[in-house]
Amino acid sequence: MKKISVGIVGGTGYTGVELLRLLANHPQAEVRMITSRSEEGVAVADMYPNLRGIYDLRFSVPDSAQLKTCDVVFFATPHGVAMSMAKELSEAGVKVIDLAADFRIEDLAVWQKWYGMAHTEADLFKDVAYGLPEYYRESIKQAKIIANPGCYPTSIFLGILPLLKAGWIKPDNIIADGKSGVSGAGRGAKVDMLGAEMSESFKAYGIAGHRHHPEIQEKLSHLSGQEIGLTFVPHLVPMVRGMESTIYATLSEDKTQAQLQALFESAYQNEPFVDVMPAGSLPETRMVKGSNMCRLAIYRPANSSQVVITSVIDNLVKGASGQAIQNMNILFDFPETLGLNQVALLP
Amino acid sequence: MKKISVGIVGGTGYTGVELLRLLANHPQAEVRMITSRSEEGVAVADMYPNLRGIYDLRFSVPDSAQLKTCDVVFFATPHGVAMSMAKELSEAGVKVIDLAADFRIEDLAVWQKWYGMAHTEADLFKDVAYGLPEYYRESIKQAKIIANPGCYPTSIFLGILPLLKAGWIKPDNIIADGKSGVSGAGRGAKVDMLGAEMSESFKAYGIAGHRHHPEIQEKLSHLSGQEIGLTFVPHLVPMVRGMESTIYATLSEDKTQAQLQALFESAYQNEPFVDVMPAGSLPETRMVKGSNMCRLAIYRPANSSQVVITSVIDNLVKGASGQAIQNMNILFDFPETLGLNQVALLP
Amino acid sequence: MKKISVGIVGGTGYTGVELLRLLANHPQAEVRMITSRSEEGVAVADMYPNLRGIYDLRFSVPDSAQLKTCDVVFFATPHGVAMSMAKELSEAGVKVIDLAADFRIEDLAVWQKWYGMAHTEADLFKDVAYGLPEYYRESIKQAKIIANPGCYPTSIFLGILPLLKAGWIKPDNIIADGKSGVSGAGRGAKVDMLGAEMSESFKAYGIAGHRHHPEIQEKLSHLSGQEIGLTFVPHLVPMVRGMESTIYATLSEDKTQAQLQALFESAYQNEPFVDVMPAGSLPETRMVKGSNMCRLAIYRPANSSQVVITSVIDNLVKGASGQAIQNMNILFDFPETLGLNQVALLP
Amino acid sequence: MKKISVGIVGGTGYTGVELLRLLANHPQAEVRMITSRSEEGVAVADMYPNLRGIYDLRFSVPDSAQLKTCDVVFFATPHGVAMSMAKELSEAGVKVIDLAADFRIEDLAVWQKWYGMAHTEADLFKDVAYGLPEYYRESIKQAKIIANPGCYPTSIFLGILPLLKAGWIKPDNIIADGKSGVSGAGRGAKVDMLGAEMSESFKAYGIAGHRHHPEIQEKLSHLSGQEIGLTFVPHLVPMVRGMESTIYATLSEDKTQAQLQALFESAYQNEPFVDVMPAGSLPETRMVKGSNMCRLAIYRPANSSQVVITSVIDNLVKGASGQAIQNMNILFDFPETLGLNQVALLP
Repeated sequence: MKKISVGIVGGTGYTGVELLRLLANHPQAEVRMITSRSEEGVAVADMYPNLRGIYDLRFSVPDSAQLKTCDVVFFATPHGVAMSMAKELSEAGVKVIDLAADFRIEDLAVWQKWYGMAHTEADLFKDVAYGLPEYYRESIKQAKIIANPGCYPTSIFLGILPLLKAGWIKPDNIIADGKSGVSGAGRGAKVDMLGAEMSESFKAYGIAGHRHHPEIQEKLSHLSGQEIGLTFVPHLVPMVRGMESTIYATLSEDKTQAQLQALFESAYQNEPFVDVMPAGSLPETRMVKGSNMCRLAIYRPANSSQVVITSVIDNLVKGASGQAIQNMNILFDFPETLGLNQVALLP
Repeated sequence: MKKISVGIVGGTGYTGVELLRLLANHPQAEVRMITSRSEEGVAVADMYPNLRGIYDLRFSVPDSAQLKTCDVVFFATPHGVAMSMAKELSEAGVKVIDLAADFRIEDLAVWQKWYGMAHTEADLFKDVAYGLPEYYRESIKQAKIIANPGCYPTSIFLGILPLLKAGWIKPDNIIADGKSGVSGAGRGAKVDMLGAEMSESFKAYGIAGHRHHPEIQEKLSHLSGQEIGLTFVPHLVPMVRGMESTIYATLSEDKTQAQLQALFESAYQNEPFVDVMPAGSLPETRMVKGSNMCRLAIYRPANSSQVVITSVIDNLVKGASGQAIQNMNILFDFPETLGLNQVALLP
Repeated sequence: MKKISVGIVGGTGYTGVELLRLLANHPQAEVRMITSRSEEGVAVADMYPNLRGIYDLRFSVPDSAQLKTCDVVFFATPHGVAMSMAKELSEAGVKVIDLAADFRIEDLAVWQKWYGMAHTEADLFKDVAYGLPEYYRESIKQAKIIANPGCYPTSIFLGILPLLKAGWIKPDNIIADGKSGVSGAGRGAKVDMLGAEMSESFKAYGIAGHRHHPEIQEKLSHLSGQEIGLTFVPHLVPMVRGMESTIYATLSEDKTQAQLQALFESAYQNEPFVDVMPAGSLPETRMVKGSNMCRLAIYRPANSSQVVITSVIDNLVKGASGQAIQNMNILFDFPETLGLNQVALLP
Repeated sequence: MKKISVGIVGGTGYTGVELLRLLANHPQAEVRMITSRSEEGVAVADMYPNLRGIYDLRFSVPDSAQLKTCDVVFFATPHGVAMSMAKELSEAGVKVIDLAADFRIEDLAVWQKWYGMAHTEADLFKDVAYGLPEYYRESIKQAKIIANPGCYPTSIFLGILPLLKAGWIKPDNIIADGKSGVSGAGRGAKVDMLGAEMSESFKAYGIAGHRHHPEIQEKLSHLSGQEIGLTFVPHLVPMVRGMESTIYATLSEDKTQAQLQALFESAYQNEPFVDVMPAGSLPETRMVKGSNMCRLAIYRPANSSQVVITSVIDNLVKGASGQAIQNMNILFDFPETLGLNQVALLP
């Protein structure tokens, strides 16, 4: 069977190299082009030596005519770039998977406030699916454009939605305390992301407001059919990869620990990339490092009315590039796990 | 002026070596003996080479007669040891500062449940003060025995008590999401604390229950005069030192961000070791590494009714040995900051 | 084609879990049993949660009869175990691949001195090959027992042998300055390997003598046909995986940087797992993390007579389990790279 | 006694904040001004929150008239700045301590080659001392300008000079394998120093040539009175602070391990900041973290003719700001250890 042809726009960042790593062993996809204005002509393997001997691609200037020859184009770009090319590619029959935020939020007034630019492609949303397969699989199958979810949102959705959809918790006071490794901040040179600055230190950031907040809130409301009150505080962990979210909610009806466990196991029993760990487990980010898995555990401490979920993903895989490939597999009717069987690197 | 004479019981762990580091430059205290059954005869500087040239003490077997010649004895021991010696030392006029948990919880039924042993010294509690100077300074001055607070409790108390004492938050649903560096787990050889296990990973632990939970709950209730509902989830951060707590509470009356800031600044204006950072600040654990400071910031995100406090300490200093010395200073009527002017090591 | 049947003896350590990770995606091998006396009955995925959903094996007590049903048995055991079972398995036609040191050194007097036990199986050496495919491939093909090389030796051999075999350097004064991540110390609970001890620190160790020294010396002498003078100092790096060796040698004849580069490129042009990087490159351990590659660069600084090679591997892959599978592939006449196409995890 | 008045030019980098940390507790020195063009008006404590409550200085634009009111001015600037102001300050009687390289190398042709600029102040060298107190104490006392040594040179000098001065080693083939934490690369925003890039990885760099090579070579030659052949390869360690050098040399005469130990102990018996550890010790960088100590050990492995020294310092203290203050103490006839009694932070 002929492989599908893949293009990557803006592949110099961490989600770009992670797409390349994961696609290198995908049996049905072949990366044909990868673009970067600033690195034109540079061999991909020179920028990312882990790819030496695996790819002999060079970065090229993004060119619509060229990209239209692909079956699917991933955008691993700053916000706003996918928006500018999605229509043309989509009309040409090319599937678009945006790892940035251009199509994540349907309320464009909210989007414009948080992303600081005008959204020019409101009419495209009819062809967009939010790329969280566990909750939007059917719409992904029909979509032309995939809004690949943010990393924090992914880890939080998978942790809280079974409860919210079951109606077992109060929707007005959900707290999500998120923690991310530094690769989440990207490959740009910033003083506060220097190794000498972030190592051996821990901090909250974005307390006053973070772009993932409205994304989470909109989708939770949409999927549960009610207004959601959410407090979200992200934190920076001195490690490269990995994301953990500890989610707190108040039970609206009395449910035992066993009932909670059963609810989650039932919700995800057919999901290849969500692992509800046995009661009492303590998920660690290293249990998913380099893999597309989300592992989670649910607790009701001290029989109080509070329920606590801890959910771990690799921010660059299930939180970005792996989930994007999962979406590609759905779009092209491949087995959803194709090429995504990487075992987490432990230790 | 003659220096006071200091004994340390059980000084082979991290709080022991930290006491030695901090006391090395204390102008009014001199460490005269340090005990360890297992390391008898070993030079302190052989176990802790950072102390080479600074101390020529050797570990000795704990001996009551010897310890009674001290003015103050610190217990940096497993739980239960201080309890067994406190009466005899205290009656001999020796001040006792326990860095373990023997005198932290007055409700002995609770204590016995969490610490798995009988508490034999209920009658000593009349001479005990809980060693959190910012809230128990007067009772510390009168005490013979100091229960030095746990690290998580310290970081959480300093963050939530101004609000709780002011009556601005609902007391029944406080959430404390704590994060600690691995030195908090001590110097015992445990597989899950190996560098190859904990590095580059993040996890929650003790979700079902942690010994610091009843300690926090009791003191919060005591200090605020009401029952407290607390959910506490600790996490392990891949770093050596440092502790951050993100605390969530619901406002019971409408207060602006500015009013919240003013409340905290007022509460701690005379406290040498609590730094209320300017509005919008993001405390990092490295801002207090090696120092006795607690730095904190308070937020009311998105004008919701949730208030968020982030509080950072060095778990081995303000969270243990530094606070113990602060208590010693109070007991002996020294300036409270004496010997505790270490500037945090940054970077 | 029927898959070969694989047994792993002693799979609770890091080389054991790494064998499982790598073999999970090997198309021609299936792990049928994994043994551990201490963990009998425990599910592999309970000990190593990265394997949840991938293996449903449980640890069993090692049993010769069972192991004889395998086509190949890996020993990921303490030194001395493989020696005790190799004869029986080998006579039963089972290929043995020992990741420990039992068959690495032919001079048994030397072996006994360094490993502190008697070597009882001298007669087996006729069937043993030293499992460094780049230099012993032909003998591996014929062997019944593979002595999988140590991690330091692997990184050093690949770096120095082209020069030594070409006769371009003085053999009497080679210096190898090796650096290893902490996973090299294994999964045993040791105080000095705690995260709170090894993080944010760097040290030399084993300066007075290290077990890999005689192994390196014997094989270098054997392969180059002359006595070798080697100084080897290992160091511990505060990271989990990765090994770098900086090797210093004195040129015995004048060779340009270009000639040196050409020598190495020629030596390894057909080797799938040795990457001679372009002149001026600086190999980093993360360029091989999780992969079976060795990447190296060669320098002649300041036109002195000193040549410097820097060579990086993942100590658990090319330095242990990956190389073991590479040897398995050779033994069973599979393509040498089968199942070993993992791309290094970067960042 | 009146405190001396201290100015710091260019205090925004890591050596600047480290000077501030160390001087905060110096009983005879007071920092009166700190300059930075880019950060004019910014409070020092806003840039370095570890200094909150300790300094209320603000960065000012460097101004000669102001700086001349100081007793001593430290230059924590890029190379070339101290050169431009040293004459004027020095003539005004202000002592100059340059933490950059402007006066480290007397052979100005060499300097110009490595630092890429013309050296305009050759005539000042008559007033310059190289600020390595252990070997240049007398000339420091007489000097007006101190060239504070590089970090690698400091760690290597202290390790090799006893042997070189005793004439016990061959001078033509010294190998120094250096390793540094990332704070050595400074606070500039560079992609390869991002936490996501340098964490969990190890590499050699500067193999083809490093600026510290000519500095080491010149001073070794000067102090030993002979030409020195040196190979120097620096490496980057994934930690913030700390530097280790492993130095290899060939004995020119037969000396026992005990003789080597005695030589070093004798050489440094009166040195407050050099600790010759007992035979068999393994110095770790954490044994000196935050302190001005150098700790070292000497080995003669396997009775070969190779001698191995391992030497550890904190690159920001004895390798930069601490040594600068040590030099200040000598210049002003203070006790050499004044204000430098910080105990290393361990763990």
